[in-house]
Amino acid sequence: MSGMRVLVLGADGYLGWATCMHLSAAGHQVAGLDNYFRRDLARNLDLPPLLDPPALPQRARLWRERSGREIPVFIQDLCDYDALVEVMRRFEPQAVVHYAEQPSAPYSMMGPAEARTTLVNNLVSTLNLVQAIGALDRGVHVVKLGTMGVYGTPNIDIEEGYLTVQHKGREHTFLYPKTPGSLYHLTKAQDGDLLYFYCRMWDLAVTDLNQGPVYGIFSQEAGDDPRLLPPLAYDDIFGTVLNRFVVQAAAGVPLTVYGQGGQTRGYLNLMDTLTCVRLALESPAEPGQYRVFNQFTETFTVMELARAVVEAGAELGLQVEVNNIPNPRREAEEHYYNPVHRGLLELGLQPHYLDTAMLVKMLRLVLEHRDRIRRDLMDPRVTWQGGA
Amino acid sequence: MSGMRVLVLGADGYLGWATCMHLSAAGHQVAGLDNYFRRDLARNLDLPPLLDPPALPQRARLWRERSGREIPVFIQDLCDYDALVEVMRRFEPQAVVHYAEQPSAPYSMMGPAEARTTLVNNLVSTLNLVQAIGALDRGVHVVKLGTMGVYGTPNIDIEEGYLTVQHKGREHTFLYPKTPGSLYHLTKAQDGDLLYFYCRMWDLAVTDLNQGPVYGIFSQEAGDDPRLLPPLAYDDIFGTVLNRFVVQAAAGVPLTVYGQGGQTRGYLNLMDTLTCVRLALESPAEPGQYRVFNQFTETFTVMELARAVVEAGAELGLQVEVNNIPNPRREAEEHYYNPVHRGLLELGLQPHYLDTAMLVKMLRLVLEHRDRIRRDLMDPRVTWQGGA
Repeated sequence: MSGMRVLVLGADGYLGWATCMHLSAAGHQVAGLDNYFRRDLARNLDLPPLLDPPALPQRARLWRERSGREIPVFIQDLCDYDALVEVMRRFEPQAVVHYAEQPSAPYSMMGPAEARTTLVNNLVSTLNLVQAIGALDRGVHVVKLGTMGVYGTPNIDIEEGYLTVQHKGREHTFLYPKTPGSLYHLTKAQDGDLLYFYCRMWDLAVTDLNQGPVYGIFSQEAGDDPRLLPPLAYDDIFGTVLNRFVVQAAAGVPLTVYGQGGQTRGYLNLMDTLTCVRLALESPAEPGQYRVFNQFTETFTVMELARAVVEAGAELGLQVEVNNIPNPRREAEEHYYNPVHRGLLELGLQPHYLDTAMLVKMLRLVLEHRDRIRRDLMDPRVTWQGGA
Repeated sequence: MSGMRVLVLGADGYLGWATCMHLSAAGHQVAGLDNYFRRDLARNLDLPPLLDPPALPQRARLWRERSGREIPVFIQDLCDYDALVEVMRRFEPQAVVHYAEQPSAPYSMMGPAEARTTLVNNLVSTLNLVQAIGALDRGVHVVKLGTMGVYGTPNIDIEEGYLTVQHKGREHTFLYPKTPGSLYHLTKAQDGDLLYFYCRMWDLAVTDLNQGPVYGIFSQEAGDDPRLLPPLAYDDIFGTVLNRFVVQAAAGVPLTVYGQGGQTRGYLNLMDTLTCVRLALESPAEPGQYRVFNQFTETFTVMELARAVVEAGAELGLQVEVNNIPNPRREAEEHYYNPVHRGLLELGLQPHYLDTAMLVKMLRLVLEHRDRIRRDLMDPRVTWQGGA
């Protein structure tokens, strides 16, 4: 199933452009769509990323020069239904990768306006996609990026999408119940519920990739061209935890561990995200199937991540300190956590596990930009109880 | 806990004004809010109800004349956060009853625009309510009207809100998993998930009343003043099933049973809705508690409802026919259905069970307006597969 036409929604984000290039390199015909929503949020909040890639048309040009392959880009808002229909009519995708959501948990907890922006953007974008597919071609495979955070931390094993329950002598298989820990994570449970509903009603084919926090910036496709690397956010709003630790280590700032740091999550390298998305596209869901994969390669506590960064820093002669600060979130800091993650391995994923070499490489790159790191961006400014 | 200040959101709807009067008669200080959203939808789709009550300020005046009690009304859109905050600042409710959602399953399946309207209205209204309570007074008790339709028809008993699961030797209690059968019902699952989330994060006190289809129009408070009765919708979009059957019987039109008619649901009389809402208000949820009641009094198949209307018609000399038409929805027509409904009975609900006398009384009232019944409004125009 090579050479598919794939439309990547949210092509400007942390993972979007890297995905476009990866799929393009694998021989697919890729187009990207974005309205610079997340870029504008970061700019408006004065949270510049450490690496700040050029706009999409420029990256498409750089990629063309590097690879000889075209990636048309559409600067459109997915919340504009007519615009989306127009793009889909022109490009006629066989599959869509949907990253185009507000991705930050702290942002969603800042206040009423940010909560509403998160809810409306994330659900209307998903609904518009479903409705456009419903109107144009119900055979289009949707690969939606979800999050492991939708499950919360239940006291039983987290299965891959579904849970079979025995109850009073009878049995039923449910979509695995969700207990998300932020409004952002809730909207990702809700967009999954939307897709599951239309799979049942319209026989849509959907893969939901419940992804753990991603770390890393390198990819084979970007190579050593820094202009093709993803934005590297390290602030408390848009920075994912391990990336933030790396920047804190480079800046000589203590790593900010929220509370005891016993929170356990499933993590993966950015390069594995790219492979997972491609594997899901190349072995699509069946019509009517809402297929769920738990997308991570290994679990760590936050303290384990901090210790890994301390160790990598030591290799470069950095004395990295760890600071357990009051937890701005409301979450369990010690809990059972045993999520299944078989599906993507069965499709052929060969994980890049976290190691010191990768952290050292990342640290070296960040150290080159050390003078641009803003130390005022890294402490948590949003609490789950009180907003911003 | 008598004499509470209660704000009723969606005061203009089928149940809203009846609730305002019932709570007012019980000694509570009631205010109503609506923006005539549903009334406008019905007007714009040319679906006039058989009984069409006057605007809210006029009904407030009629109620004052009848009871000597004031019900201030606010004509405001709940999706306007600032307007809601202003109303809550002025009225300072201790509890809020939230009916203010797009209530029709077929409407939500008509097309992309109607789907979006349903999703945005139902979720933004609920989010705004939560955020206003978060900003002003986290002690306000929310009584939200949900629907039994969020559960779908699982093959195990439907518990009252929560399900304890044994899995691989461990145990966890989840919110009961939802498998809704229309986009409308999905948004009602999603608004519940929103409220549950903020109960966990902000210790809000919420009661979710998962209500079955309501029938009837009479209430003690309206008495025999037809201007105080609720709107009686009988069309395929806004009419609930039993009310529609009664109007079809009066019009001499065969009752439109969708498919085999083996679909089983839990039903209740409008008067029991009023009591349930009052009982929930007078025994509020605790801070941090997301309390769920399954609000119905008895279960029927659609064919059983049709037969009850045939029987009531015979008492008045009407020959009522039943027509099993192709099911426009995608749903099981034979299924297991055993939902628990204990909580409201324990709070003191004394059900008005469905009987021929009530149906005859309703038929007599409808027959008075027989010449106004539009026969072109009663056949299904929306299919779950193809929209309007």
